[in-house]
Amino acid sequence: MSTFGHLFRVTTFGESHCASVGAIIDGCPPGLTLSADDIQAQLDRRRPGQSNLTTPRNEKDRVHLQSGLELGVTLGTPIALMVKNEDQRPHDYSETDSYPRPSHADYTYLEKYGVKASSGGGRSSARETIGRVAAGAIAEKYLKAAYGIEVIAFVSSVDALSEDFRKLLSTVTREQVDQHATRCPHLDTAELMTKRIIRAKEASDSIGGTVTCVIRNVPSGLGEPCFDKFEATLAHAMLSIPATKAFEIGSGFRGTEVPGSKHNDAFVRREDGRLGTKTNWSGGVQGGITNGEDIYFRVGFKSPATISQAQSTAQYDGTPGSLAARGRHDPCVVPRAVPIVEAMASLVVMDQLLIQNARKTAASLLPPITTLPPTMVMPAKSSV
Amino acid sequence: MSTFGHLFRVTTFGESHCASVGAIIDGCPPGLTLSADDIQAQLDRRRPGQSNLTTPRNEKDRVHLQSGLELGVTLGTPIALMVKNEDQRPHDYSETDSYPRPSHADYTYLEKYGVKASSGGGRSSARETIGRVAAGAIAEKYLKAAYGIEVIAFVSSVDALSEDFRKLLSTVTREQVDQHATRCPHLDTAELMTKRIIRAKEASDSIGGTVTCVIRNVPSGLGEPCFDKFEATLAHAMLSIPATKAFEIGSGFRGTEVPGSKHNDAFVRREDGRLGTKTNWSGGVQGGITNGEDIYFRVGFKSPATISQAQSTAQYDGTPGSLAARGRHDPCVVPRAVPIVEAMASLVVMDQLLIQNARKTAASLLPPITTLPPTMVMPAKSSV
Amino acid sequence: MSTFGHLFRVTTFGESHCASVGAIIDGCPPGLTLSADDIQAQLDRRRPGQSNLTTPRNEKDRVHLQSGLELGVTLGTPIALMVKNEDQRPHDYSETDSYPRPSHADYTYLEKYGVKASSGGGRSSARETIGRVAAGAIAEKYLKAAYGIEVIAFVSSVDALSEDFRKLLSTVTREQVDQHATRCPHLDTAELMTKRIIRAKEASDSIGGTVTCVIRNVPSGLGEPCFDKFEATLAHAMLSIPATKAFEIGSGFRGTEVPGSKHNDAFVRREDGRLGTKTNWSGGVQGGITNGEDIYFRVGFKSPATISQAQSTAQYDGTPGSLAARGRHDPCVVPRAVPIVEAMASLVVMDQLLIQNARKTAASLLPPITTLPPTMVMPAKSSV
Amino acid sequence: MSTFGHLFRVTTFGESHCASVGAIIDGCPPGLTLSADDIQAQLDRRRPGQSNLTTPRNEKDRVHLQSGLELGVTLGTPIALMVKNEDQRPHDYSETDSYPRPSHADYTYLEKYGVKASSGGGRSSARETIGRVAAGAIAEKYLKAAYGIEVIAFVSSVDALSEDFRKLLSTVTREQVDQHATRCPHLDTAELMTKRIIRAKEASDSIGGTVTCVIRNVPSGLGEPCFDKFEATLAHAMLSIPATKAFEIGSGFRGTEVPGSKHNDAFVRREDGRLGTKTNWSGGVQGGITNGEDIYFRVGFKSPATISQAQSTAQYDGTPGSLAARGRHDPCVVPRAVPIVEAMASLVVMDQLLIQNARKTAASLLPPITTLPPTMVMPAKSSV
Repeated sequence: MSTFGHLFRVTTFGESHCASVGAIIDGCPPGLTLSADDIQAQLDRRRPGQSNLTTPRNEKDRVHLQSGLELGVTLGTPIALMVKNEDQRPHDYSETDSYPRPSHADYTYLEKYGVKASSGGGRSSARETIGRVAAGAIAEKYLKAAYGIEVIAFVSSVDALSEDFRKLLSTVTREQVDQHATRCPHLDTAELMTKRIIRAKEASDSIGGTVTCVIRNVPSGLGEPCFDKFEATLAHAMLSIPATKAFEIGSGFRGTEVPGSKHNDAFVRREDGRLGTKTNWSGGVQGGITNGEDIYFRVGFKSPATISQAQSTAQYDGTPGSLAARGRHDPCVVPRAVPIVEAMASLVVMDQLLIQNARKTAASLLPPITTLPPTMVMPAKSSV
Repeated sequence: MSTFGHLFRVTTFGESHCASVGAIIDGCPPGLTLSADDIQAQLDRRRPGQSNLTTPRNEKDRVHLQSGLELGVTLGTPIALMVKNEDQRPHDYSETDSYPRPSHADYTYLEKYGVKASSGGGRSSARETIGRVAAGAIAEKYLKAAYGIEVIAFVSSVDALSEDFRKLLSTVTREQVDQHATRCPHLDTAELMTKRIIRAKEASDSIGGTVTCVIRNVPSGLGEPCFDKFEATLAHAMLSIPATKAFEIGSGFRGTEVPGSKHNDAFVRREDGRLGTKTNWSGGVQGGITNGEDIYFRVGFKSPATISQAQSTAQYDGTPGSLAARGRHDPCVVPRAVPIVEAMASLVVMDQLLIQNARKTAASLLPPITTLPPTMVMPAKSSV
Repeated sequence: MSTFGHLFRVTTFGESHCASVGAIIDGCPPGLTLSADDIQAQLDRRRPGQSNLTTPRNEKDRVHLQSGLELGVTLGTPIALMVKNEDQRPHDYSETDSYPRPSHADYTYLEKYGVKASSGGGRSSARETIGRVAAGAIAEKYLKAAYGIEVIAFVSSVDALSEDFRKLLSTVTREQVDQHATRCPHLDTAELMTKRIIRAKEASDSIGGTVTCVIRNVPSGLGEPCFDKFEATLAHAMLSIPATKAFEIGSGFRGTEVPGSKHNDAFVRREDGRLGTKTNWSGGVQGGITNGEDIYFRVGFKSPATISQAQSTAQYDGTPGSLAARGRHDPCVVPRAVPIVEAMASLVVMDQLLIQNARKTAASLLPPITTLPPTMVMPAKSSV
Repeated sequence: MSTFGHLFRVTTFGESHCASVGAIIDGCPPGLTLSADDIQAQLDRRRPGQSNLTTPRNEKDRVHLQSGLELGVTLGTPIALMVKNEDQRPHDYSETDSYPRPSHADYTYLEKYGVKASSGGGRSSARETIGRVAAGAIAEKYLKAAYGIEVIAFVSSVDALSEDFRKLLSTVTREQVDQHATRCPHLDTAELMTKRIIRAKEASDSIGGTVTCVIRNVPSGLGEPCFDKFEATLAHAMLSIPATKAFEIGSGFRGTEVPGSKHNDAFVRREDGRLGTKTNWSGGVQGGITNGEDIYFRVGFKSPATISQAQSTAQYDGTPGSLAARGRHDPCVVPRAVPIVEAMASLVVMDQLLIQNARKTAASLLPPITTLPPTMVMPAKSSV
């Protein structure tokens, strides 16, 4: 369905042809200072038309807050927000409408619902992500204010063009990411990526890529065994983003080829006296629960399905033919996907944090445990 | 939490030190013929001690059905089942207890709950998966009986040893998979894998691998936009399995390097008159909704954390030292992970199928739509 | 939280001081003909200022549909709708602000969230119910179109003024209910109620009452054992309406005084060959599951807390004093509560119907049961 | 479905004919001292055969803890528990099997599932409540230990025999309740009730009654606007208990006849400096949120449907006839319902408390609000 989260709960609405898109955010902590500008910043990073690498459609995408705030402070009640669909002309029928676009959602939406929007794949439209990005920006603001948590995503590959970005994870900033239109913080690679994307564009074709994201300063203890492990919820969140096909956390697929003796993250005492790990192949999560180290993961985005070159395919009724999509489309989605990945990551952390808060506060009200061996009990201190 | 699914809902309990492990399965369709044997078959495939590649612990793991059935037929009420923990001696303390095992859940469980089982990582124990496998076997039995759906997983790599298994996807059977103790259906590769695993075992080390799974005969229309896309729920399910670090569906990460013009799955008319796709890079899912093609995906399992060679690490209090795990452990989990992957896949399909059944039945009771252009409406037929 | 339902899921937002109120309705069956007028009709019945019995505030409350429809047909995607708050002046502080209104939500909102809207009890505002009524109108339209289900509520008491309305349950219409401003379909009693309400108004006081609701033509089989029994979900829905204090279904509290031999509803063969009951003390539900008879229940609404006569009470800081509420307020809420009760009842039926659809369709795809004694198996026929 | 709660989540299984009944309790705070005895005490109060007022079946109902604990301390992981069905003979078919019992669940279970247990109404069996009572006992133990919360229910009427029990609410103890087999703490009334129940028993008939419950020392701030108001969740919980038909909180139905000027609970400064109310018609809840006063409510139980006198009714196929139920049955369920009401009340408080803990802890981590007028912000102090 269109709702994500348990205690910090986001419900989105809207597709490209309708009056507006938006979301209701339920469960935002009360007392957070919040303005439309906090949200607009991330919406602007998601917006098309930011560079010659993205689609030239010019959507203004101004967010309008409807509820849940007074005098710039959240009240704890649902925050509704909306962004108008500026260009809402009636769909003018053309011959291409008789073709389901290959690898797009036209066909599956019709199969699922028995009816579909004239503009095609309904909620699989990229405009659906506006509600997510707005909601994520609110979560991110809270996480930063209350925990100093930082959520930074960047483009880590386009086609096979990549780099070893692991050394950047502990330091990369949003400013560094936005230095280049590709949102790749390694400028030489970024230039190569640009050329690859422009080549796709000029060929009326498209290309995929990956986004890597790091979340810093997350307290230990988040993640709910056994089905709602931190990485499981994160994978759910990431694979719900349009055009994603793959997810890996920490060492990921490559880690399957490393023996345990090398892959294990040995413990060390950190400067603050708490335990840390010497390496971080786990990606900040062990047994489904955060361990306080940086959380990092990578998401694969396929090449966009909508391309303007002609493709041999079939009509809804099976008649073979050739389809060339009309309109202008992103030749590569990863630069614009960066704020979407950040948003979904923020939603996951926020929700898991609230759940763990509940548990931890409840446990703290019980008398100290005196009947268990010391290795079974954590010495008194607080991590969340 | 320990519950998975919305209408077909599984709640598991238990860890290695306690009296039993098991599950409650709520929402199983009434009228299904079911016996303990249906479930035992998959439990036996999950069980340790099946070959010299797995841990020599001998757990009998007999399932005991408690409720929800009469005379071998499901009643629609919750099915409870349990498997006793045979070997339930009190934990005998040793020096290793003062060390959190590296890359294991000892430390994070203590951080999360402030208390942990003496045996370590609690619900991150592989025994927790017994409840999942049992529940999955029930789902699978229904899916086969009602839809002819087949769920087949196999080991697709150990370390870097792999093969191009895509050509097997449409034909591979569970019998072929079980021909070899590795559960790799390509026998030459299986032999190499065996050697690699034995090498790890002899070195008191461990190694990872991947499991690939195909789900055949799934109707089109499953998956709930926008957050509960089919692949999102699948990724959630897979990353909730202990030791997983990565997930990809269809072309996955490799698909990010293929231009849209090659990656798009062109439509063709199938023999039954319905639309199919010529290729299947999408992995059976488009826009988060199944399209009726084979669904296939790959899951990455890291090398097991528990190894018996000595590792430099620190104690809970930060004191540096060296830890060598006691006991016998799987040097590689992927052969035993095969039925777990199948179980979780079955749970996802089952739940999404019930949800889509609700929607589709509801829509079918409305009068036919006459006011929309024909390209917006599916001609009358039924796919679920 | 602000979400109700599992498969037909309503999320509302907004309170009196903010830009708009509204809802997202997720899970509406696709292919339903729907317009703003379908929704407006029930909103107008909820609106203040309809007669001299309700508050003279004049809120236009026009609904604006944002998404989920095209050309007047639902697409299966989330339907967002909003109603602007016309009169959105900044709150002008007065001395009364230092008093939490007795039996109102001012104090508890502050206790819960640590911050509250300047206008008082936030989401306990009656404007919050606009989203529910709109969502209910959509559910009701589907239920009528697909099943011929009718949901009719009416005022069954004001103060102690009542009548035996049970004989009306099988025939009462919305037109009959709306004949009189009180929404009591028994005109003599309605006149007495009017006088009682005007007396309360003239005394700057308020008075309570009850609303009775009947749901006709609901199929048998709805309701989910054991926690989500039909009547449990209905009670949840009703007690979530502001100002409610009591709920009873069928014979209710009075039924506790009737011996089983008289209270039991004996079975009879109905004209259509199916089983019915001779009496209906059960109120259409047995064992938490609908039996196909009329469902009827009664909801108690307390006298409104906001009255303009002076009350001895205390300020937030405990200082004793006297408070007389400013503004105009309903002296009795039950006439306006009628469409709210109908809305919540429709939401319950809709959600339970979708869930049962899922179950029933799933069971129908299995081969017939041949191994059970005939008294354990229903002969083939379809009720949903 | 068979799951209740969000963060403290109970899933029950089992009916009368199967191997065992029980529950999984997920989300119990870690570090709670817990033994089977803590649970057994409430199970024994629910057990049949306690006096000549209840059914003479002798079920031992010993609880067996399966998981989630070690050395008598909860680990935070799911607690599974089961109670064996001792007397599990195969159902011997008799002529009565061709009759659905009037006002029982035989018919509706068959309508819902298309198949039913040979023993009849499946999960509507009173044995299903064992899992609830056990889960409630765990919640209650936590609530007492961490907050000093007391949950006391008692029989407040049988037939029309009652008393004004409101004056007892602040003092009544479980010991006082258990002084008399009826569980009515007013001994004269208890004696009259006894006679009424024995009269029903001797007439092979049955009679209903009500249970009143008070919850003391609940912190202010619990309850989630707008759909999960405290009283809405409580009503849901209570109406999910078999044989319930009615619920009222605070002044309830009678409160609908009291003008606002008398019904409003004026605020006063309590001895601890916090606000309290002079009267408590609200029943401890205002605007759906607890205010710190005693919470009290009343639940109506109908007369049991199973009576041994002959009733004119019809068979499943519609054939008219006469049915006299075999076996021994409770002539009145309210004495045994007392611990069930307490259990469900404890589950509601526990779940709402955890949710509010999450919210409150999250808000407490933000910097103090300085930009709002003082009447909008709670002075710093902590109530949960």
